[in-house]
Amino acid sequence: MSGDDFDGFRDAEAGFRWAGVERLNYKEEGSAPFKAISRQVLFTDPNLAGELRYFEIEPGGFSTLERHEHVHAVMILRGRGTCLVGEKTRALEIHDLVTIAPWTWHQFRANAGEALGFLCLVNARRDRPQLPTAEDLASLRAIPGVAEFLDGK
Amino acid sequence: MSGDDFDGFRDAEAGFRWAGVERLNYKEEGSAPFKAISRQVLFTDPNLAGELRYFEIEPGGFSTLERHEHVHAVMILRGRGTCLVGEKTRALEIHDLVTIAPWTWHQFRANAGEALGFLCLVNARRDRPQLPTAEDLASLRAIPGVAEFLDGK
Repeated sequence: MSGDDFDGFRDAEAGFRWAGVERLNYKEEGSAPFKAISRQVLFTDPNLAGELRYFEIEPGGFSTLERHEHVHAVMILRGRGTCLVGEKTRALEIHDLVTIAPWTWHQFRANAGEALGFLCLVNARRDRPQLPTAEDLASLRAIPGVAEFLDGK
Repeated sequence: MSGDDFDGFRDAEAGFRWAGVERLNYKEEGSAPFKAISRQVLFTDPNLAGELRYFEIEPGGFSTLERHEHVHAVMILRGRGTCLVGEKTRALEIHDLVTIAPWTWHQFRANAGEALGFLCLVNARRDRPQLPTAEDLASLRAIPGVAEFLDGK
């Protein structure tokens, strides 16, 4: 919450935007595979041990397949889609909750013909994500349903 | 996230409830003034430095007027209402964001004829709230608009 004259209030605006909140790239281009996803940091504060972000995936887009030590606590806020968490894929609807435990492979996909928007709570201090090796990917794809999920089918 | 066979997923249910999440009293009865408010803890996890709770205030109800060192990061999820934060009252609508800085008096009221539901992110480790003294209350009521807010008008 930077140079603007922030008074503690941020009005919601049309299209899942918020006053004074910048719509950012999900990640640096080329740093990892992803498609059609944006990021807005809703709460970050030196007195808060957590950060709350809003991610939105356009229809057909997906987040990076990754894992890390830190936990994700996710609430769906817009639309529908599917996620992979560990060995499970799961359809997602508004206000559904997903906890992604440490070192669990995960990916979100807007594969239901509409945008998928979600809140994600993380620790402010957290480790960097790890990408799958070719071996990791082969193991994941061997799980029933996972190859189809990863191929966007 | 206790004794149930929690697999990381909690489906949203009708009426802003979640599978496997208990609907709790806001606080212990008699511990502080409040009216018609419930609490559901959506995310609490030993690996998360924050907790995400959902509070819902029935029409005409209100949260405790209090302050504390820890920060509240609030997103409105249901309905409309008004909050007092420091010396300001503010109308609230769906997806509006409110940051309550350390030691700031605050109260939420469902004073728009409908329920007011909101997410509240806090640090897992946090101090206990402080209630206003008679002097604090008199100072607050002297601020234009605040007495009317506190009286539910």
